[in-house]
Amino acid sequence: MSAAPPSFIPPSRLLLGPGPSPIDPRILQAFTRPTLGHLDPVFLKLMDEVRGMLKQVFRTQNELTFPVSGTGTAGMETCLVNLIEPGDEVVVCVQGYFGARMADIAGRAGGKVTVLDAKWGEGFEPGQVEPLLKDRNVKLLCIVQAETSTGYHQPVKEFAELAHKHGALIVVDAVTSTGGIPLEVDGWGIDAVYTGTQKCLGGPPGLSPISLSPRAVEKLDKRKSKVQSWYLDMSLVRKYWGADRAYHHTAPINNIYGLHESLRIVLDEGLEARWQRHREAHDRFAKGAAALGLDFQVKEGRRLPQLNAVKIPAGFEDKPGRKELLEKHGIEIGGGLGDLAGKVWRIGLMGYGARSEVVDQVLVALKALLKR
Amino acid sequence: MSAAPPSFIPPSRLLLGPGPSPIDPRILQAFTRPTLGHLDPVFLKLMDEVRGMLKQVFRTQNELTFPVSGTGTAGMETCLVNLIEPGDEVVVCVQGYFGARMADIAGRAGGKVTVLDAKWGEGFEPGQVEPLLKDRNVKLLCIVQAETSTGYHQPVKEFAELAHKHGALIVVDAVTSTGGIPLEVDGWGIDAVYTGTQKCLGGPPGLSPISLSPRAVEKLDKRKSKVQSWYLDMSLVRKYWGADRAYHHTAPINNIYGLHESLRIVLDEGLEARWQRHREAHDRFAKGAAALGLDFQVKEGRRLPQLNAVKIPAGFEDKPGRKELLEKHGIEIGGGLGDLAGKVWRIGLMGYGARSEVVDQVLVALKALLKR
Repeated sequence: MSAAPPSFIPPSRLLLGPGPSPIDPRILQAFTRPTLGHLDPVFLKLMDEVRGMLKQVFRTQNELTFPVSGTGTAGMETCLVNLIEPGDEVVVCVQGYFGARMADIAGRAGGKVTVLDAKWGEGFEPGQVEPLLKDRNVKLLCIVQAETSTGYHQPVKEFAELAHKHGALIVVDAVTSTGGIPLEVDGWGIDAVYTGTQKCLGGPPGLSPISLSPRAVEKLDKRKSKVQSWYLDMSLVRKYWGADRAYHHTAPINNIYGLHESLRIVLDEGLEARWQRHREAHDRFAKGAAALGLDFQVKEGRRLPQLNAVKIPAGFEDKPGRKELLEKHGIEIGGGLGDLAGKVWRIGLMGYGARSEVVDQVLVALKALLKR
Repeated sequence: MSAAPPSFIPPSRLLLGPGPSPIDPRILQAFTRPTLGHLDPVFLKLMDEVRGMLKQVFRTQNELTFPVSGTGTAGMETCLVNLIEPGDEVVVCVQGYFGARMADIAGRAGGKVTVLDAKWGEGFEPGQVEPLLKDRNVKLLCIVQAETSTGYHQPVKEFAELAHKHGALIVVDAVTSTGGIPLEVDGWGIDAVYTGTQKCLGGPPGLSPISLSPRAVEKLDKRKSKVQSWYLDMSLVRKYWGADRAYHHTAPINNIYGLHESLRIVLDEGLEARWQRHREAHDRFAKGAAALGLDFQVKEGRRLPQLNAVKIPAGFEDKPGRKELLEKHGIEIGGGLGDLAGKVWRIGLMGYGARSEVVDQVLVALKALLKR
């Protein structure tokens, strides 16, 4: 009589696309721990531990550091809707899909958005941005550190300095960077940063850790208008994650168990060691890719080790190629987005996937696909 | 050398507060299944199954039925920000905490909000609402079916009829009702409805299933302004959950595994049987509560079986009482919110918790607490 489908038994895939990345079984097991109430004293203690570990991973002392109850874009939107007031001048550096998303959200938040475009696969130098900040009362500069759509590694420290020099705050998209490459929130002076659990932190998607600097909190405190989102309103959420423990919304408890375990794994390994491991996996992949005649979309020196965009070789097609990898080898890789759709394959080597045996596995599969 | 805290081993609690509710172990196990990519063909098929089951649970044919990637309030905000355009007249019926939250969000979405207040623990009759809809070009009527803060069961069918009679749409908060008491989205003419996974659907918190009627979709399609939220913009999200399968954001894959299993359990049991089970658990609890001298906050006939707000008896205090239940008996119940803070205890008998042995367990604990 039941109209329910059978139990879902997914195939086991090797996730080497732009995320989600392969997951350490310890993290999935953590999800099955008994659910606690969101105001249970034991859960509140866990929240403090999660905040403490996130501060270490972001390299920050920011009090306002916690996971937003949504995936990466929810973190992006949280930073932007809290820091932008209607009419604020906002400069967004767009070198790919996620920069463009920031610009879209900043506009919806009421910002007067100026977009600085770079060719997809390239990035920005500080000299390009400074003229846009000068004498224009810009309130917010937005930039993506690890552009997942292109594999470009954008240095951000000098941009933070420029923003502050001209009285602006800086928001950095660190969704794909956190845990995979160096990120120094306090050291570089980043005012707002967000990431996702499913990239180099190595867990399933579902949460977006963020951190706001005291400067950002000051801007938040001085707002004249309500934040347009209630769900993402930091002035309310912080009362739950902070000392007040005031009920705001029911936190996704088991996802926070998973994040707690992810962060434990990151800190047990050590951040530097983890960055180094991502670097080594990339080097191994790059060597193998060169042997297969594959070219990178991004120039050397600016390549993200965790997100390798390689040009689809002449004579091969995007979707059939990815389908073959998925069906014959059980490996998921990503296609291109936007300007790079149909032109690149994106091979993620993130978190638990940034290991030599994984690199070898995808190289073997690519070799079979390319029949070289 | 690691700065990580030890692995988190939560105590096992009996969750009889306002949610999260006790969870069938099958659902937690589903969370540990191998994560798939959000565009994997196997995952896309799972999404269709989830949509199909949600349509059965909501009793609707609405195409636009899917889980929002956030907890219940994200579903509330999704319905409101998509259906309200700046300047729209909105009427919100407020008989507790969650009605008030709807009014707040409707205002942030640019609605011109008129609030109709009821005393907490009471509700509305259609005759009270009609004058507010008449000749006022109201676009949206908002009402809570199961007010979690008070335990009031608000019938909504006649309100939907009134809304349509006066050219308005109706949004119904069904966070605590879905799966626990009758809800007929198509039968009653509800235009937008949202729920949460952690109440009578019996899973962990993290997703908010919603459904929009063709009338609601038409309003969405005719919008002149962008939806203020990008993350919750249905005109974008529906391209991912619909036939296009266009990437929007990375869905919380493992939460959707959990929801899939929750819905299978609901449909295997059968909706009517599940409603009946909630009713029986309530009756058993009410009988026991009466024997302990406990009074309900809500009058008979309007009590939610799944959320029992009982008045804290004279001589007892809210927090110490709840603390004793938690620490001595491992049982979580809820305190009051807003107008009822310190005045009631809220005992949830939802989903996997709506069972006679669970009722007996909390009655034994309450008896020990009250020493009667």
